Amino acid sequence: MTSSTLDQRLQTAYGLHRVVSPAGVLPQQADVLDATPAAGPDEVVVDVERLNLDAASYRQLREQHGSGDAVRAAVLEIVERRGKMQNPVTGSGGMLFGTVREVGPDSPLGLAVGDRIATLVSLTLTPLRIADGLSTWDGDSEQVPCAGTAVLFGRSIAAKLPDDLPDELALAVLDVCGAPALTDRVVRGVGESPSVCVLGGGGKSGSLSLVAARRAGAGRLVALVPTETEAAAVREAGLADEVVLADARDPVAVAAAVGEQVDVTVVCVDVPGCEHGAILATCDGGTVIFFSMATSFPAAALGAEGLAADVTMLVGNGYVPGHAAFALDLLRAEPGVRSLFEAR
Amino acid sequence: MTSSTLDQRLQTAYGLHRVVSPAGVLPQQADVLDATPAAGPDEVVVDVERLNLDAASYRQLREQHGSGDAVRAAVLEIVERRGKMQNPVTGSGGMLFGTVREVGPDSPLGLAVGDRIATLVSLTLTPLRIADGLSTWDGDSEQVPCAGTAVLFGRSIAAKLPDDLPDELALAVLDVCGAPALTDRVVRGVGESPSVCVLGGGGKSGSLSLVAARRAGAGRLVALVPTETEAAAVREAGLADEVVLADARDPVAVAAAVGEQVDVTVVCVDVPGCEHGAILATCDGGTVIFFSMATSFPAAALGAEGLAADVTMLVGNGYVPGHAAFALDLLRAEPGVRSLFEAR
Repeated sequence: MTSSTLDQRLQTAYGLHRVVSPAGVLPQQADVLDATPAAGPDEVVVDVERLNLDAASYRQLREQHGSGDAVRAAVLEIVERRGKMQNPVTGSGGMLFGTVREVGPDSPLGLAVGDRIATLVSLTLTPLRIADGLSTWDGDSEQVPCAGTAVLFGRSIAAKLPDDLPDELALAVLDVCGAPALTDRVVRGVGESPSVCVLGGGGKSGSLSLVAARRAGAGRLVALVPTETEAAAVREAGLADEVVLADARDPVAVAAAVGEQVDVTVVCVDVPGCEHGAILATCDGGTVIFFSMATSFPAAALGAEGLAADVTMLVGNGYVPGHAAFALDLLRAEPGVRSLFEAR
Repeated sequence: MTSSTLDQRLQTAYGLHRVVSPAGVLPQQADVLDATPAAGPDEVVVDVERLNLDAASYRQLREQHGSGDAVRAAVLEIVERRGKMQNPVTGSGGMLFGTVREVGPDSPLGLAVGDRIATLVSLTLTPLRIADGLSTWDGDSEQVPCAGTAVLFGRSIAAKLPDDLPDELALAVLDVCGAPALTDRVVRGVGESPSVCVLGGGGKSGSLSLVAARRAGAGRLVALVPTETEAAAVREAGLADEVVLADARDPVAVAAAVGEQVDVTVVCVDVPGCEHGAILATCDGGTVIFFSMATSFPAAALGAEGLAADVTMLVGNGYVPGHAAFALDLLRAEPGVRSLFEAR
């Protein structure tokens, strides 16, 4: 290493000093983190109130372990062993909210003791300790009431919970706030009134992405959903010009349902196997944004190649500057989305 | 399904009629394909001469099975069982070359019996039958001499092998021709003289991406390689302004080696765990192109989020119109790249 300055920056901002094993990797790649709840100079310690497990992670745990009790035991085992809640199968985590307990003197996050916050960095890199055995969680929901502690680093991102929205509603929005922000950016960058299709348009990230696309100037706006119930809800909320039904994992069905290919396809379906349908729904020269953590990189790359599809494929980055405020403002401005969120 | 026209198109062009199980998926997602070597109306049957296994796939097979004999047996078992060469662990395949045996009357590919071709669609979706038990392959290389048959669909992509280059050289270039074509497009789209770093700049896709970036107007051009031997070769070939050494899987080392963050990072290292280094090497507002099939979607998405990195991340699409001719022309025009390829 020639740059001790860089090492110093990484150490302090990215949490390398919290990595127990293997040595030298960033916290997300680590097998085990040190979750000791004492703030270093630029750290913040949070009293956790609730974890919100990534949908793909929760689904996998549920499928592997079955009962709510077994899912709870699995989550406890993971956090105990790893010092963080990172599903070893899906690689994904989730987020949390809680109250600031301690702020290191050099923390750049602008937080004060007592602030109620949600973390916008993944649980996969957040040192976490559970103190109550998750005794108040029945294991039957991805929302996990939890007493425990978490640590934020200098470069972590946390949003103060707004005063004008219920916590659970704000948390649900913040959990997926990267999707509408990136959809906004992509749709604005594509040109005049691009057509947009959102796979999973009835879900949290999907419904926010639909209204973000509309406000960014989308022309034809298509929501693809799996059930008539969801279709009715999306129609009722007025989120799209067309609401179509198909199993997003069935490329032939997706292509048939969407009809004329669109300029931008946004994938918000948290199950594996949606890559090919998204590619087939998108015109040559178009863009696919993959937000689902269940996306397979080889399936996307080889799928486009195998279909001779000249599409730009984006890994949905969960961080876009200003994403938290953007998503909360969408919810405030769009009663249709708010009612969908509240119905969940 | 409302659109029988669409179904018809998918059936004939994308090879759905070759899917044995599960029903209704595209060939790449299928567990088993029908590899019967008889051309349907828009199909082409090829007498295979050689398979070129995807580097990530070959590496995985080697690690799992050890000896060359065991690797050969594993490849035979996969092709026998699945009717295609798709590594069940990595999900990736490779490509092949051979001679056209039969052309269906409606094939749009412009091929004639006797043409020597390379497939530019992945082996993961190409019906394949092996006839010689791979008896002339020692299992010790990703290049697999093979007697057998393969089937191309209406929307498959195949390149005629050029007369002016040795087959193995052309095949090696065509195998990675998506990388330089997409690098060219991205670098041209970024603005004035963007800085570019190629992780794995000494490899096949890496060296072609370096010269593509240079020709597309890159400013500062950095090649990151793992060994002093590779560094010397890249310096000798004159492919970059700076050649730096680091293990691409070590984000801290990558960031330190690259120094000032670049506008575009191209990942051409076929091992898992390079996502975070690539993100740390890239400035806010910059772009990362992932070409390695070993890329983890969650690691990329959550990595950027966890590092609060506002970077655009692209899934390297193996198909860009004109990519084969573009890559072959780069090789012809750049003696440095050609010598690197010949040295392999």
